[in-house]
Amino acid sequence: MNLKIGVIKGDGIGPEIVTEAMKVLDKVGEVYGHTMDYDQLLMGGASIDVHGVPLTDDTIRRAKDCDAVLMGSIGGDAKTSPWYQLEPDKRPEAGLLKIRKALNLFANLRPAVLYEELKGACPLKEEITEGGFDMMIMRELTGGLYFGERKTVEENGVMTAYDSLTYNENEIRRIAKRAFDIAMKRRRKVTSVDKANVLDSSRLWRKVVEKVAGDYPEVTLEHMLVDNCAMQLVKDPKQFDVILTENMFGDILSDEASMVTGSIGMLASASLNETKFGLYEPSGGSAPDIAGKGIANPIATILSAAMMLRFSFDLDAEADAIEKAVAEVLREGWRTIDIMSEGKNQVGTEKMGDLIAGHI
Amino acid sequence: MNLKIGVIKGDGIGPEIVTEAMKVLDKVGEVYGHTMDYDQLLMGGASIDVHGVPLTDDTIRRAKDCDAVLMGSIGGDAKTSPWYQLEPDKRPEAGLLKIRKALNLFANLRPAVLYEELKGACPLKEEITEGGFDMMIMRELTGGLYFGERKTVEENGVMTAYDSLTYNENEIRRIAKRAFDIAMKRRRKVTSVDKANVLDSSRLWRKVVEKVAGDYPEVTLEHMLVDNCAMQLVKDPKQFDVILTENMFGDILSDEASMVTGSIGMLASASLNETKFGLYEPSGGSAPDIAGKGIANPIATILSAAMMLRFSFDLDAEADAIEKAVAEVLREGWRTIDIMSEGKNQVGTEKMGDLIAGHI
Ligand SMILES: CC(C)[C@H](C(=O)O)[C@@H](O)C(=O)O
Ligand SMILES: CC(C)[C@H](C(=O)O)[C@@H](O)C(=O)O
Repeated sequence: MNLKIGVIKGDGIGPEIVTEAMKVLDKVGEVYGHTMDYDQLLMGGASIDVHGVPLTDDTIRRAKDCDAVLMGSIGGDAKTSPWYQLEPDKRPEAGLLKIRKALNLFANLRPAVLYEELKGACPLKEEITEGGFDMMIMRELTGGLYFGERKTVEENGVMTAYDSLTYNENEIRRIAKRAFDIAMKRRRKVTSVDKANVLDSSRLWRKVVEKVAGDYPEVTLEHMLVDNCAMQLVKDPKQFDVILTENMFGDILSDEASMVTGSIGMLASASLNETKFGLYEPSGGSAPDIAGKGIANPIATILSAAMMLRFSFDLDAEADAIEKAVAEVLREGWRTIDIMSEGKNQVGTEKMGDLIAGHI
Repeated sequence: MNLKIGVIKGDGIGPEIVTEAMKVLDKVGEVYGHTMDYDQLLMGGASIDVHGVPLTDDTIRRAKDCDAVLMGSIGGDAKTSPWYQLEPDKRPEAGLLKIRKALNLFANLRPAVLYEELKGACPLKEEITEGGFDMMIMRELTGGLYFGERKTVEENGVMTAYDSLTYNENEIRRIAKRAFDIAMKRRRKVTSVDKANVLDSSRLWRKVVEKVAGDYPEVTLEHMLVDNCAMQLVKDPKQFDVILTENMFGDILSDEASMVTGSIGMLASASLNETKFGLYEPSGGSAPDIAGKGIANPIATILSAAMMLRFSFDLDAEADAIEKAVAEVLREGWRTIDIMSEGKNQVGTEKMGDLIAGHI
């Protein structure tokens, strides 16, 4: 099979970690007989440096021509990087928002998994995480406050800023369906998170999710208020299977959940549209402080490549092979510094990529 | 001194825990020579049962006539209580939103403290909480999404819901000033939380907060994105002194922070207006599952009464006396069930109130 993959190496540690994921993909291609056809695309700071804007129309066009996009990370140090002297909507992160909308990537999947071997890094006490946890956060990614109308105006001499939050039933239905579909392949529980005691958008959210749930009698649906969910993630993360929520709540809760695992350098993510197309990237940021040092953990990106094979190409065996290779390398005791603990062997970004590719 | 205090016992465990706080206040009055003039007011479910609405104009008028209001908790079990058959804006919680606006309670202070004696209940590993933490969350309480315009309409056959988020510079300035004033009496650090990489309201927020910071050269100001803050509360809560944020982010983050302490039954809160007036209530909810059982922890409400004496009446010695009494009772090993651990003595709500009053 020929896999046409857009590659956005991105900023900070992005190029280093994406290089390792490509190494692993190449090995998969060799072993399973696929050809990888990469198209290297610019986005974020790297695009600003070349084109003056974080995302060009040409990049969008070329991304659309691919079957999937693998991405590193976007952005730099807001305090020191010249990118942050630009107007907010010209900065690296604006490229991220723009590509989500342009490619209609409405479904953001972020697994938050506690790896048995990495329990030491989890900030929660062992009695809470006993037996591990494994949840999938499904965040709506192209609606709500992050894509609302906004303006800042002077009214009677007073500066006033407006943002708006809109959801329609179609937007809610399509993400809810995705969440229930995924729950069917997991532990069949969906926790839909909203603020229905206050917001109209949350009330519509709840109503539409209930309706979709009617088509999935095997799945248990529960509603949870966002403030309560922020508590429950810390108190008892094991209770969750699939968390379904709107854009901003998902932004906050998925970051909280990934920190609760203690191993953000291990967490992949996928952003999907209505077809098989998706953009795959690590959950963590561009970590400009360690960029170029060869010490970043490439595993989140490698696991994102596995998600890509699974969701965009239906190559389940190949995706399994990558996930198994990662698990084996961890079991053998190899660690990058972010997940290092006593009695283990510390390796850099490149060596970690070699080890995982070697297990395919 | 004569203290005119409105008392809203509220729903669920509310009446039980407020009764103990009044017992402690009465003892303070006895010892320090103050008279407590209570006006018992109805709000939430208790008001619905009597008046059909969660908050009457008469209650608002009487609350305004008081120097401060002490409150238990509002609301019931959303799955079983008939209150939740009503339209959303007629439910118990709607009373809470209405009274905040009616009394202009724009500054919500929620301390999140790890009590040395209760470290066992904290969900975080000891290496993270070593030495304890003590932060104050300052949430803007009368603006933003929770008080925006909202509507749900059919557009081309598709139901669409709208909420709006507005802040003007005056609203931001007054809460920022409060946060810096409080930081001056603490460790002189303010972390202002926003989503300035996306929202116009957050950009205005950041600008106004920076300006206010100019008047407080001794206070260190740092800006943090809300998704990052949700992570940092779990990763390293010790880094925070005062967290300053808008209404919805504050709702989510303050609940997360209180759960991170592991002792939500210990956490007080104050909601203040421009004057000395304030409404004081425990951070936790109405816990309908344990209502009437005499086992609820009254300490959060008792500490809320202490905050009231401090902020609304400038009775610092009296507030200190309550806080000291609580600390002593804990040191002696007395615990309600929510904070119980091995080798300690379990007591009910009433006995806990007696013990604390006995130490005044
Ligand atoms: C960079 C920012 C706009 C983005 C978001 O909030 O969506 C990021 O935090 C994320 O979660 O992918
Ligand atoms: C009941 C609800 C409206 C309220 C809020 O979100 O403000 C509550 O969660 C709180 O934090 O006091």
